[in-house]
Formats: sequence, C-alpha cells, structure tokens
Amino acid sequence: MTNRRMVLARRPSGLVDEATVRLDEGAVPEPGPGQALVRVQYLSIDPTIRTWMDDAPGYMAPIALGDVVRSGGVGEVVTSHSDRYKAGDVVVGMTGWQDFAIADDGSASMQVIPPGVEPTLVLGVLGVTGMTAYFGMTDVGRVAEGDTVVVSGAAGATGSVAGQIARIKGAGTVVGIAGTPEKCAWIVDELGFDAAINYRSDDVAAALRAACPRGIDLFFDNVGGTVLDICLAQLALRGRVVLCGAISLYNATERPAGPRNVPNLIIVRGRMQGFLVLDYLHRFPEAQLEMATWLADGRVKHAEHVVEGLERAPEALNMLFRGANTGKVMVRL
Amino acid sequence: MTNRRMVLARRPSGLVDEATVRLDEGAVPEPGPGQALVRVQYLSIDPTIRTWMDDAPGYMAPIALGDVVRSGGVGEVVTSHSDRYKAGDVVVGMTGWQDFAIADDGSASMQVIPPGVEPTLVLGVLGVTGMTAYFGMTDVGRVAEGDTVVVSGAAGATGSVAGQIARIKGAGTVVGIAGTPEKCAWIVDELGFDAAINYRSDDVAAALRAACPRGIDLFFDNVGGTVLDICLAQLALRGRVVLCGAISLYNATERPAGPRNVPNLIIVRGRMQGFLVLDYLHRFPEAQLEMATWLADGRVKHAEHVVEGLERAPEALNMLFRGANTGKVMVRL
Repeated sequence: MTNRRMVLARRPSGLVDEATVRLDEGAVPEPGPGQALVRVQYLSIDPTIRTWMDDAPGYMAPIALGDVVRSGGVGEVVTSHSDRYKAGDVVVGMTGWQDFAIADDGSASMQVIPPGVEPTLVLGVLGVTGMTAYFGMTDVGRVAEGDTVVVSGAAGATGSVAGQIARIKGAGTVVGIAGTPEKCAWIVDELGFDAAINYRSDDVAAALRAACPRGIDLFFDNVGGTVLDICLAQLALRGRVVLCGAISLYNATERPAGPRNVPNLIIVRGRMQGFLVLDYLHRFPEAQLEMATWLADGRVKHAEHVVEGLERAPEALNMLFRGANTGKVMVRL
Repeated sequence: MTNRRMVLARRPSGLVDEATVRLDEGAVPEPGPGQALVRVQYLSIDPTIRTWMDDAPGYMAPIALGDVVRSGGVGEVVTSHSDRYKAGDVVVGMTGWQDFAIADDGSASMQVIPPGVEPTLVLGVLGVTGMTAYFGMTDVGRVAEGDTVVVSGAAGATGSVAGQIARIKGAGTVVGIAGTPEKCAWIVDELGFDAAINYRSDDVAAALRAACPRGIDLFFDNVGGTVLDICLAQLALRGRVVLCGAISLYNATERPAGPRNVPNLIIVRGRMQGFLVLDYLHRFPEAQLEMATWLADGRVKHAEHVVEGLERAPEALNMLFRGANTGKVMVRL
C-alpha cells in the first residue's frame, strides 16, 4: 500500500498547471503514540488554497515547495494509537491532498464527526464554507430586517449559502451575482434569491441600480475587482461591505488597480471589513446547530460538485476560478 | 452698505481659478420676522467646500451656479427680529462666503457662542474641525491603549488634533504624515507626535515600516490615494482605517485608480470606515467640553492660519490642496 501525495512542485503564475503540483508516491505513514492513521475520502477545494501556493505574506505561511498541498478534508480512521480516535471514526480537518493523513491527539487539527452526519456536509454547508457564510453575514455584515443584500460569487459554496442566510435573517431584497444563465436561474428558482445578475453578459451597474433602487445595505463579496468597485459606488447610507474573498485576484500575476469608489465610503458613512472564519472556530457549534435546523427545514439548500480522483485536485481548484462549479467543490478519493 | 457675495460662477476643473467664483455686490439682506442679520467675521475654509462645487452626488447637494459659496463661518448679530438672537451675539453656522448672512429662528443653522469663547476656536478645534478629529479617532477609530496610530494630513486642522487625541487616549505610537520639513518638525516638537514622515521627500512605505514595526493599528486618513494604499498594506491584525477625507482626490479631473491593497483587509481582519461629523452633532457638547479641558491644560495645541479678505477665500481654499497651510485655515472679513 502506498500513499499518493500531491506536492507543490513549483509556485504557479496564474492558474495552477501541470508543473505546479507533482504526484508523489511513498509509504503510508505510521501513526505514532497518540496518533491515528486516516484514509482520506473527500478533499475540500477552496479558493484560499491558491493563495497558500504563492510565496507571499498571508494569514498562513505559504505551502513549502515539496510539501503536500494544504487542504481540508474528511476521512476514516484506519488504525489508532490514540484515545481520541477509534478505527471507523470519520474525522474532518487539514488532511492535505493525499490518500492518508495522520490525526494527532495533541493538535486540534482533526475532529471526529458525530455518527450519521454526511461527511460532505462537514466540508460544505456545515463546515468552514457554511460557517464563513454564516459569520460573514451575521457577525461581520450584521444583516438586518429589510436590508438590500448583494452577494458576489452567488452560485459558489459560500455565496449561495450567504444569500439564503440573509433571507432567513430578514433581508428585504437578496440579489446574487454569478457567471452563467444556469447559475443565475439556480439561485433565483431554487435558492430564493430575488434577482440574479450575470456579470459576464449584463451591465452590472445598471442591473444593480434596477434591482437595488434604494442602494445596497450589505454587499457580501467573494470576488473583489470590478464588481466590488461597482457595489461601493451603489452603497446605501451606512452600507457595509463584507470582504470574504477576492477570487478575481488570486490568479493575477500583477495586482490590478484597486476600487476607485473607496471614497464613497465617506459620503455614505460606509464600512468595509475583512474577516477570516478561523477567528470564529469557538462559535462553530452554535452556528452549526442553527444551520442544521435550516437544512432540515429546507430553508437552506446547497449544491455539491464532486470531482473524482486525487490527481484531479488541481483541475478542481481551477474550476473555482473559471467559474465552472455550482456549489461546493470536493474531490472524492 | 452693500453685501459682497462670492458666488459660484463656473464649476471648477481641478483647482479653483479666477473663473470659478465671482464677486457679486448687492443689497444687505433684510431680516424678516424670526430672523437676524449677521455680519460675518471669519469663514471656515474646509476641503469639503471643494466637493460641493462639483456637480456630483455627495452628502449634500452641489452648490448651484450663481449661489453664494456654501461655507461655515462666525459673525456678530447686527439687528434681530428673533427671540433667539440678540444684537451683539456671536453666532456660528453656515454663513456662506459673504459679508452678511441671515440667522433664522426656525432652522438650527446658526448657534450662539457663549460669551468669552474665541470665535476662531469654534471654527477650529472646538468646532466642526476638532469634532471631526474627536469622533473620528474615538467613535469610528476606537483608539485604544497602546495603539500604533498614523495620521495623514497631520499638520492640517483635523489631522493635527486627531494625533493629539490619539496620544491623550493612550496610543503607544503616533506618527504623522505631512508635506514639508517645517510641518514635520511642528507636529513632533510642538504637538508631541513620535515621528513625522514627509510624503514629498521620504520613502513613505519604508519610513512607516521603521516607525511602526508592529504594523498600524489605526490609520486616520484625510488624504486618500497613494498614502492610503501604503497604509492598507501595513495594517496590523484587526487594524482600522478611518476615512475622514480624501483631499488628494478633490481636485482630480479623473478619479485615479483605487488602493490595490484593499484585499489585505481580509488577511488582517481589518476595517475601513468612512464617517461625517454631521452625524455627531447631538454629541458635540460632551466632546467640546472634553476638548476645552485639554486646551486649557495645554494637552491639545492648535494652529490657525488666517487669510485676510473675503475676495481671497478661493485662494485660501486652494492652500489646503497645495499644502500651503499649517492648522486651520480661516478668512477674516
């Protein structure tokens, strides 16, 4: 038995390509005392992985060349020398892009999932992705009754959930920005957004003015770039911009010019705030409970986009930036 | 007796020039019932006046062509048909660029100054300018014990006071950015800033890294543009940017590219927030009381830059954008 590992071979310039990641086969790791061996079942494919591949300052150290690509995932405990993990347990944590990972008593990096919970849910709507939508919309954005809310990347894993949370929390109008007619139809017809704007084919500024005639109270931004600039110009009095991600920039070889409309924050007394869901780990349980209720009630719907095979993880990552996915992208091993 | 009025003759492109404002002489206005006639003594020259001259959306309607230039000022009540104002009272309010203005019972636009208070103080450090520094630094910026604070436009009326308030409120390091060696010396030697950076001659990014080795906790920005971008890149964890003004942009004929480093707000979980002091009018009394104490104790020092003559108001306004002033610019009539 071998452990296939996708290691960072060369730092990418632009999208990840064949030279970026190398498949490396080696021995299955031996769990030491207090450790367990985990067979990885699903990888969580998130835009932030691309930022870790750059040799640039960030909220985490860059992935070192030659190291397994850092990634969330779920897996099953195969053998254990730990009191915390038993064979058969399903765990979630930072598995990396590989067949086998080590769970360690001493770190909180792997959590056992309660029996009966779908493993893919804890990567998606009940995991980091859904929690990002939850805390970004509530704690950072302070969505309020009657708000006009706009979400970019609205057919993505985080955006699709963020818009639905806005609706549940009383937003008056929820508008999503996405990149294909199918995605636009999905967020309106299935997820209950009031309107969808196709940023590839619509005049986004004009469409936003039509959909948000009183301006934007809360813009939940996953994308950055032009769409952010347009929304800054259309903020309502005391409008908020939640900076969740800037997916349009992660593959840029040069950082493009920033939003011209930042000074509009003065006129409207607006607030633009960035956040990382890592700061909310201690509050995940309360939010997961609420989210699980919404899922059970059908008030939150979600989509999963599963790609088969470890070796396709780089391709799955690029899908996020090409807009080829609807909902949460995962790789099944 | 005539009323000289400086009226907006043509919308400026770039700095105000001879064609922008026209001196118009007319009859002294007659106060009606509930009104008083005010002889204007000082005009408050503020960067925001330039924004009102553009035909662009803002927090107030543009000044109409042919109207007196909108402006704060102080003056003395000459005659009164109002119970609120008596002859001899000194009032502060929106006088406009003219010799005589009307105070009206029915509007809150003119306030009587308590006897003994210097009229110029209520335009400067005890007025809108000082209140902008106060609420921007405390309420919006939430300056905290030990903070590393950076102020742009630090030798200006608002910036110079903002930096001193930061120090009083416990900031650990206060750094000012200004445009001449004299201004830099003034804010350090007289006002007690820890360091000053000359944006015209220093490498601002390098100088900030040296002065703020642990990053910037609070950036109080009056200027916008490049300096804002540099500070965004150097924000500390949970850093805040208070957008008070964007003086570098008010005369721009095209709005230049925005700050490239906005996405850094995500990495540091930062907040950038705009505000207008108008929203704090109801809290002026508490802040004015505190500021008056600091002035009396010598803990806040301020500078006034008085230009003589109504007809020089446009020149005085341009001084703000050329960086020709230290402290509060006023015109004495």
